Order: sequence, then C-alpha cells, then structure tokens
Amino acid sequence: MSEKRIPVIIDCDPGCDDTAALLLAFRCPELDIRAITTVSGNVSLDKTTYNALRVAEVIGTDVRISPGADRPLIREAVYAPHVHGEDGLLGIDLPAPGKKASFYKAWDAIYEEAVAQKGQLEIIALGPLTNIAIALAANHDLAGMIKRIVIMGGAAQGGNVTPCAEFNIYVDPEAASMVMKSGIPLCVCGLDVTLKAYLTAAEIREIRALGTPQAELFAAVTENNCEKVFCPAGAPLHDPAAVLFAADDSLFTAQRCWMGVETQGTITRGKTVTDCWSDAQKEANVELVLDVDRERFAARIKELMAGY
Amino acid sequence: MSEKRIPVIIDCDPGCDDTAALLLAFRCPELDIRAITTVSGNVSLDKTTYNALRVAEVIGTDVRISPGADRPLIREAVYAPHVHGEDGLLGIDLPAPGKKASFYKAWDAIYEEAVAQKGQLEIIALGPLTNIAIALAANHDLAGMIKRIVIMGGAAQGGNVTPCAEFNIYVDPEAASMVMKSGIPLCVCGLDVTLKAYLTAAEIREIRALGTPQAELFAAVTENNCEKVFCPAGAPLHDPAAVLFAADDSLFTAQRCWMGVETQGTITRGKTVTDCWSDAQKEANVELVLDVDRERFAARIKELMAGY
Amino acid sequence: MSEKRIPVIIDCDPGCDDTAALLLAFRCPELDIRAITTVSGNVSLDKTTYNALRVAEVIGTDVRISPGADRPLIREAVYAPHVHGEDGLLGIDLPAPGKKASFYKAWDAIYEEAVAQKGQLEIIALGPLTNIAIALAANHDLAGMIKRIVIMGGAAQGGNVTPCAEFNIYVDPEAASMVMKSGIPLCVCGLDVTLKAYLTAAEIREIRALGTPQAELFAAVTENNCEKVFCPAGAPLHDPAAVLFAADDSLFTAQRCWMGVETQGTITRGKTVTDCWSDAQKEANVELVLDVDRERFAARIKELMAGY
Amino acid sequence: MSEKRIPVIIDCDPGCDDTAALLLAFRCPELDIRAITTVSGNVSLDKTTYNALRVAEVIGTDVRISPGADRPLIREAVYAPHVHGEDGLLGIDLPAPGKKASFYKAWDAIYEEAVAQKGQLEIIALGPLTNIAIALAANHDLAGMIKRIVIMGGAAQGGNVTPCAEFNIYVDPEAASMVMKSGIPLCVCGLDVTLKAYLTAAEIREIRALGTPQAELFAAVTENNCEKVFCPAGAPLHDPAAVLFAADDSLFTAQRCWMGVETQGTITRGKTVTDCWSDAQKEANVELVLDVDRERFAARIKELMAGY
Repeated sequence: MSEKRIPVIIDCDPGCDDTAALLLAFRCPELDIRAITTVSGNVSLDKTTYNALRVAEVIGTDVRISPGADRPLIREAVYAPHVHGEDGLLGIDLPAPGKKASFYKAWDAIYEEAVAQKGQLEIIALGPLTNIAIALAANHDLAGMIKRIVIMGGAAQGGNVTPCAEFNIYVDPEAASMVMKSGIPLCVCGLDVTLKAYLTAAEIREIRALGTPQAELFAAVTENNCEKVFCPAGAPLHDPAAVLFAADDSLFTAQRCWMGVETQGTITRGKTVTDCWSDAQKEANVELVLDVDRERFAARIKELMAGY
Repeated sequence: MSEKRIPVIIDCDPGCDDTAALLLAFRCPELDIRAITTVSGNVSLDKTTYNALRVAEVIGTDVRISPGADRPLIREAVYAPHVHGEDGLLGIDLPAPGKKASFYKAWDAIYEEAVAQKGQLEIIALGPLTNIAIALAANHDLAGMIKRIVIMGGAAQGGNVTPCAEFNIYVDPEAASMVMKSGIPLCVCGLDVTLKAYLTAAEIREIRALGTPQAELFAAVTENNCEKVFCPAGAPLHDPAAVLFAADDSLFTAQRCWMGVETQGTITRGKTVTDCWSDAQKEANVELVLDVDRERFAARIKELMAGY
Repeated sequence: MSEKRIPVIIDCDPGCDDTAALLLAFRCPELDIRAITTVSGNVSLDKTTYNALRVAEVIGTDVRISPGADRPLIREAVYAPHVHGEDGLLGIDLPAPGKKASFYKAWDAIYEEAVAQKGQLEIIALGPLTNIAIALAANHDLAGMIKRIVIMGGAAQGGNVTPCAEFNIYVDPEAASMVMKSGIPLCVCGLDVTLKAYLTAAEIREIRALGTPQAELFAAVTENNCEKVFCPAGAPLHDPAAVLFAADDSLFTAQRCWMGVETQGTITRGKTVTDCWSDAQKEANVELVLDVDRERFAARIKELMAGY
Repeated sequence: MSEKRIPVIIDCDPGCDDTAALLLAFRCPELDIRAITTVSGNVSLDKTTYNALRVAEVIGTDVRISPGADRPLIREAVYAPHVHGEDGLLGIDLPAPGKKASFYKAWDAIYEEAVAQKGQLEIIALGPLTNIAIALAANHDLAGMIKRIVIMGGAAQGGNVTPCAEFNIYVDPEAASMVMKSGIPLCVCGLDVTLKAYLTAAEIREIRALGTPQAELFAAVTENNCEKVFCPAGAPLHDPAAVLFAADDSLFTAQRCWMGVETQGTITRGKTVTDCWSDAQKEANVELVLDVDRERFAARIKELMAGY
C-alpha cells in the first residue's frame, strides 16, 4: 500500500449503485476511507443509514458511519423506490448490522476530518448534496480545506428523473447550487459518462462467480438495472464511476467547463447547465467527466472485486 | 417542375443566414413560396423587413412580404448585432428595394394562406416564433389547418446565446412554448443539426466563383461565420438547414420525441427540453432533426446556387 | 343624452357580476356602448358568449357581441364554476337569445372601434385581459389609440382565488402584464375597492321589488354572493364597480401608483404588486381605485335599475 | 424578578433598530437573555458582530455573543448601508468593546440553549433568518424544542426594500421559508405593525434627556429614521416592536393565519403571502401581529429606558 493514499469521505444514499460503489471503494488501495456519511436520497435517511451499516458489515469494515440530512435543504424529500426497492436494496436479504451509526453528524464528521487532513481531504459524493451544503453553510472556512469533490450527479445532456435532470441534483438543487458556487475543485461524473460506464450481463455473471458474499451482493444490486432503454448494452454503474474516477482518473476523459444548477424553472428544476462554447463564455468551475475507457473500467472492477 | 410543390410561407428575420436561406428557397423546385413574413429577431422589425425586401430584389421575386411582430409576445426585444451587424446584413451594399412591404400583417397572411391552401400549407420558421404565436392566439382554427412547421430553433444539447438556449427560442420563449403545445406537426432543426450543416471556406469560395449577384450575396453573408469555436470546420448554415429539410428531408436524420420550452428559470430561459429516455416518458410532439448528410447537403446548396 | 357620451367596449366573461355590470352599463347615460367582447374566464368562451347574448336579450339591446379568446394567452384555462355555476349564470332560466354572436373577432372589433373613435375609445375590462393582449400584440399602433382602460382585476392586498391573487389576473397573468406595460392610461378597480362596493341584502330586495325582468335578473345574480366571509355586510359588486367608475369616477377615491403583475413565482402567480412607498420608488402607471362612497354607489345602482 | 422569566436568544444584525431593541431587551424583566447571535443582514457579519459587542458594552452585559452566517443560505449577500450607515451604526462614536465574540457558532449556541432550556427557549429574530435555518437543517430535533420565535420580518401588505418585500425576508427568502414551514410556533411582527410602532420626535427627545449613555445611544440610532414618507408621524421601531411583543404581547393585536414566503418570482422575491379569506383557505401557521397600542408602547419604552 502506497504512502500516498487519498483521505476520502464517501457521502452516499445506498441505494443499489451506492452499494456497488462502497464495495469497490474499500478495495481501492488509492483510497483511505475516513468515514461514510449518509443522506436522504434514493430512500429515507433511516434506510440509507441502515443500508450503509449492513453493507459495511458485508465489506467487513468498521469505518465510522455518520447520518446527515433527513430531507433536502428547503424542499420536500423525493425518493426512488421504483429503482432501488422500498428498502433501498431491492429487498435483498442481508445480515443485520452489528454496529450502530455514529452520534456524530455528517457535517461535523466532514468538517472535523477536513481539519484533520490539513487540506488533503476529498469527498466522493454519491447522493443529493445536502450534507455538504449544510457543512459549507455552518463552516465558512470549510471550502478552503477540501481538496476536491468527485460528484456523481447531473448531466450535460438529458436526465433520468425528468427529461433534463438527474436524480441527485433534482432532489436538492439548492444544495447542488451551493456546492457548484463554493470554489471547491469539483469533478462531475454525470449521466454523460455513467451511462457509458456499464458492465454487461456476462461481466456481472463473472463477478458473481467469484463466489464471495461481496461478489454476490455486487451482482445482486447491479444486474437489476441491466439492458434498460437508456443503456441497452448493460447495467450503468453511476456511483462506482465516481469512486473509480476518484481512485484513478486515467480511466476517464474530462474537460473543464462552467456548470450551474437551475433551482427554479417549470420544466428544468435541477438541470445542470454546462457551457462549452456559448456567447456567455462563463468561467470554468468544474471538470466535467464525459467518457470512460469501458474495457479498462470493467477490468478494474473485476480486479477489485476479486480482491475480496 | 412537379405538380406536387409544397405551398410554404417563410417566416424570418434576415439576418445573414436567413438571407442564405431565402436565396436557396427560391431555387428549390419543391417549394411554392406564397409569402415571406418578417419578425423582430436578429435585428428590429424595420430592418428585417427592409432586408427581406432587398434580398427579394436580388432574388428577383415579387413575392408578398408581410411584416409581423415588432417585439416578442410579452418580453423586451433582444437582437444579435454582434452576429449580423447593426443593419442585419453586415453592412453589405445592396440596391434599395423597388417594392414596399405589404400592409397585410404577418398573422393575417398566415391565416389567409392557410385557409386558401386547404390544409396543405407549411411554414418554414427561421426567427423567433412570435408571428406564429399571434396567428394561433387570434385564430382558434388555425392549428388544424397547418400541415407542418419546420423550425430553425432550439437545441437538445447546448445553446448559443446562453449555455443552454438558442437565440430564436430564447428571444420569445412564450411564443415558442405556444407553438410546441399547438398540436401542429413540428420538425425542429436546432443547433444539434445546424452545427453539422456547414459549408467549408473552400465551398463558399466555389459558390462565390459562380459570379452571379445571388452567389456573391450568398458568399458574403456566409463566410463571416466561418471556422468559429463552435464549428471549426466551416460556416454553419442554420436557416438554410431548415429550408433544405422542408424541401428534401432525405438529407437528414431525425427522431420523434417530446420537446418543451422553459419560459421561467434563472439560467434556463428558452431551453428546449427534449425527452428521449427519462422516467417522465413524455409523449412525442416533434420530429427532432439530429444529423445531416453534409456532403449531399453541400452539393445540393451548390446545385441550387448554380441555378441562378 | 349628452353629446359627451364616452364610446366604450365592454370586454367581459359573464358570469354573475358581469351580468349585473351589463345591466347597469346599458342604463348609464354617460356610456355609449359600441360593442361587447367576450373572453374565456368565469366559464368557457362558448358559455360567456351565450350568456352575453342572453343578457343582451333581457336588456333589449342589439349591440354587437364579438367572441375573443377561448383560453389564456399561454396557459391552460381556469374557470370559476363554484362561484358562477356550471353555465356561468347559476342555472337561471333565461329566454334563448334571438341573435347570434358576430363573426368579427374581439380583437378586430376593438381595433376597428379604436380607429373609428379617433382616440376617444375606452375599454371596460371585466374578465381576464386576454382579448386586449391579443389586440395589442396584433396591432402595434393600438396602445396609442385607447383613451383609457378601466379594469376590474387584481388587489393591492390579498386575493380571492389564491391568498394573493385575484381571479381575472391569476387566470392570464401574462396578458395582464402586457396591458400593465402598454402605456395605456389604466384605472384598476381591484378587490381593495370592490369588497367595499357592496349592496346589502335589503338593497337587493328593493331592486327585485322593481318588478322588471332586468331587476329580477340583477337580483338573482347578485344575492347569491351575499354575506360571505370576505364581505359580511352584503354582496360585493366587482364588475359593476368598474362600470360605475367608468361612468362617474366621483363616487370613488383613487391614487396613482406603479402596478406590476407577477407571472412567475411559486405562490404569487398573478399577484398585482403595487408600490406606494418602497425603496424601489417605481414610476406610476395606474390609477389604483381604493375606496368608494358606498351610499352613493348603492343609490346610483338603484336609480339605474329603476330606469328599466 | 419573577421566576417566570422567559429564556430567549436574540438573533440580530445591528443595525440601528437592532441596537434600540437590544437596549430595551436587557431592561425587560420578563426576558432572560441567554445569548445574542449575529447574522449578515443590515451590514456584513463582521460589522454586526462588532456592533453587538459594542452595544453590549454600552448596556453593560457580558452575555455571550455568537456569530453565525456571513451570507444568506443560497444567495448573495444584500446589505442596507443607506439606512444604517456603512458601519451599521451611522458612524456613531462608541467605545471599543472590551470582550470578544464567542468561538461558539450561532447555530450551536441556539441548539445547546434549546436543549438546556427543556422546551422553554424562545428566539427573538431581528435579522434575516439564516442562522435559524442552519440550526434547523443541522438539528432535526430542534424544531420541537423551541417554544416560540418572534420574528421581525415581512409584511402582509407592501414592502420596503421592494414594493412587496421587507428587507429581512427579502435577503434570505429560502431561510425564511424553512422557518415558516418548521412547525415552530411563530409570531410575526412585520411592517403592518412596525410602521405603527413609532416614537415621535418629541418622545425621542424625552428619552435622550434621560442623560444616560444608553439613552443617548437609543436616541442617536432612532431619530435618524424620523418622519419619512412611510411613517410621517415619527420613527418606526421595527426590531423593538418584536422585543416588546416577546416581553408583553398585551400591547399588540394579532390574528392567526397562514403565511408563506415567495422564493421565486420576478417581482415578488421574499414576499410574505398571508391568507385571511381566499378560496385557498390555507391552514394557519403564524400569529400575525397587526396593530399596537402606540401610547402604551411608547410609555413602556420610556419606562424601560429610564431603568438604566
């Protein structure tokens, strides 16, 4: 293990692809996972926290798990049970967790770790950005202490929950807007890249064949999303794409550009607007991830899962 | 000349690419141009009308030219002199028109012609959609009498005047929204296709070399837009793309989808939202033109211009 | 009758209080009613037009009745059957009209009459302002030819259909905004004054006791709205207030101020914002009617109804 | 002093009327002031905190002063130097404070005190509601532990910074909306009552004649706002009205109603919409303070200031 491991907090709302992302992240030698923070998103905070605890049990980690926001900053909660199941994990039977969530809140965990890591902390944000927005609102000096946030969220083109918005940003557009304007270096893995970051049904079967409980869980949360209209070739791995980008961005292609979040509008709530060549020529604030070397991406995932 | 010529009204705001579009349209044997209607857009109504008269003089047509709206439906006028010059035609020296504009208003011309053509009238809309919106508001039975509108406007991805809006839709989003919801069959040539519908600098020189006044004007209004950042390979022919689609859609690739126009929002005014595979699964109301066979497109333009 | 009679068009959506307003207007010697134009509002255009025809029959006038917009400018129609009944006249049994509506459209009637009256035409607008907005959009020179519009609509404080919007403005806020910005001299009789412009139950009985068909109709459409929570003292006569203001503004108190219409917002659609002393100090564009001499108002109504 | 003193935190942005409010609050025997928290508002956070420290020095209290938000939740800061001077206190010469602000943040002070007071804590909120919104976002159980918030903010009718918005709500409408929806019992002293809660120029002179440094400061921050167009009779005491309401609501008249905050809109940002009798009939969530017994109000102020 290198001495250069990146200290990270994973902020997530498991959720099927969050679960796959966590399974992978804990096998990435590049990442030193300091904490998991949970947020209301795919399902309610109670469920995302319970799922994080259950997945940590499968992984075999005793990382601190700090619950955060139980609803978006200023809006009603929106969930996605049609994608992740009522419990957020498709009803998959998992052992009850042996540990409890931390009493320490997500934003306090983020702030404390940012201070402790002396400017080296990165955040991998896999759900609505509410926790990070609260951390920023409550700590004026926080933005200057975060090295980078890798966000799974948004889309330069298209959307999923609406025709032009991706779920994580749609759910809490005000929080996302605060993060976009924070000045923190941001890398955005949106639908543009995550729909290309898929595993085929055959590849998922190969991983299941590894025979470990971790491989079984990975396959179970992944196969469900296979060969749908928006990604006929396989199952897109939204959150894992952000984790792998954080660990090794050489798998990906990105470009710097401006990104803003629509917080109003009648049909554009949560759209992540990007500027590549308009007359507005807005100053770049994000690195927009646009493509992935899918073969290497799939190979890396198989290698990581084989590490269990 | 076939007996199947399509009766069309060209609604436009010349404008450089409108001028190229008019020069081409009057040589298309498929099109029977019944009237030109003018609208506030690239420059003010006075100027777009005067330019339409001057271009008609160069073309040698005595088609009726009916001025319409001198501003968007409910917003302040926005112009684009940085693209088209203060006069809308880059200050190009053209003979004064010998004729005058019609006293008959654009929306009345549209309605009357729609009645006369018994359901066969098509409109090629090259500017903000204000005139058509007024015609629809003032005539409840009009929508059912228009066979098709081919619109140059919008973008499934990106924008020009702002990062996510194209000029024609941005200028009058309420008018565009009314047209989108009208039930009239719509074909939308947005930036997605028009940035691929370009002529190279060499091809423009070939046209100029034809030596006619029409070829000279075509080249003069076209070359200015050559090899900019948004289309490094040549000069995109936004409005001509719509004209050629109206004349011969076999040059193009399109798909049916839903399109809506954002009329509110803080950074998304005038965005044309499209739905291909989101959870919303909205019902298709447009044929979205997405690609062009550029070689055939360029060849057709040269052929048409050689017809003068 | 004096040579100083004011040429007016009454634009309305009968509707109970519109009916009372029409009954009164045709007895006002100050007013020379050139046309009635109808609009979608309290009920659908078909019904408001049919009701206008029936009421004209009761009045005994052969004034031209021109139907206009069958929906708001850019929004879906909203009706108020809970106030006016499904037919717009509480199901009151009236003779079928002997005449038909004009084929001439509302906006054309307005424009033609404005030209004919050489700058003297006033409009009494008792419904959503859609017809006037279309007339203004389609005729750039119209605004300069209208002497005054007396509007029943809006509220400086409060609302009826929502907590801060009055029905007529709420239904078509874009049309209202166009009229507010038109530069035409405007007098606004909103809820501020119309809730004070009431008749008591006893006064309505007195009018019924006049025994004429007109008095009977007046009482029937008025008494229903008596002694509700928003006006415990009697039945507010919204539309009649505007008619009486147009005929004799000495019954009223008004002040000049700025008024704008909110066309967006999450809870403020159609709010008429007024500025009396804010830091913004916006320039006055309306005469806001704020109070009425109720005793004289009631007396005038009784006198007018006695004239049948 | 009675054992029934109300434990309160004063959240403020001094500011002239905040200063008057603090001077009065510390003489109210009904109030047990546990902390002052400061927020960006009339001037920047640095200045409001420094002013709170200076005013505490004049008062002679060693209450804890905890700074909070240095900007609104999701918007750019807006200040009011034209009302309060560049320094927030009209450049009045005051001794430098002997103490420093707490390192403990406003929202942490609020939460800690709410826990300590076992459901009895009240907050008197005299600035934008950002601190309280952050406290609520970061502590899901906080809303149930606050007995009441008395808010100086909003207006059922009119506005000051815009024609329909009061400054405190306009500056951070999202924070205000969060507080309105929190379920905490709320009493709102908006412009409706505060413009009636004035002191005359003569009354201010009487207070100055008390000769104490506190009386001198009270007069200096108050007289400047005397006899302006929005309150020709004297100087409205916006923030003091909320303090006196918190101490003794018998001076005031209030009614229960629904209040919501517009966070969007083109001309209605920050409007506090109230519902008294509209068709919407929304459920009451605030006690809206509408009138004051001005004579008793003025007498109470003189009595309190005489207590120094």
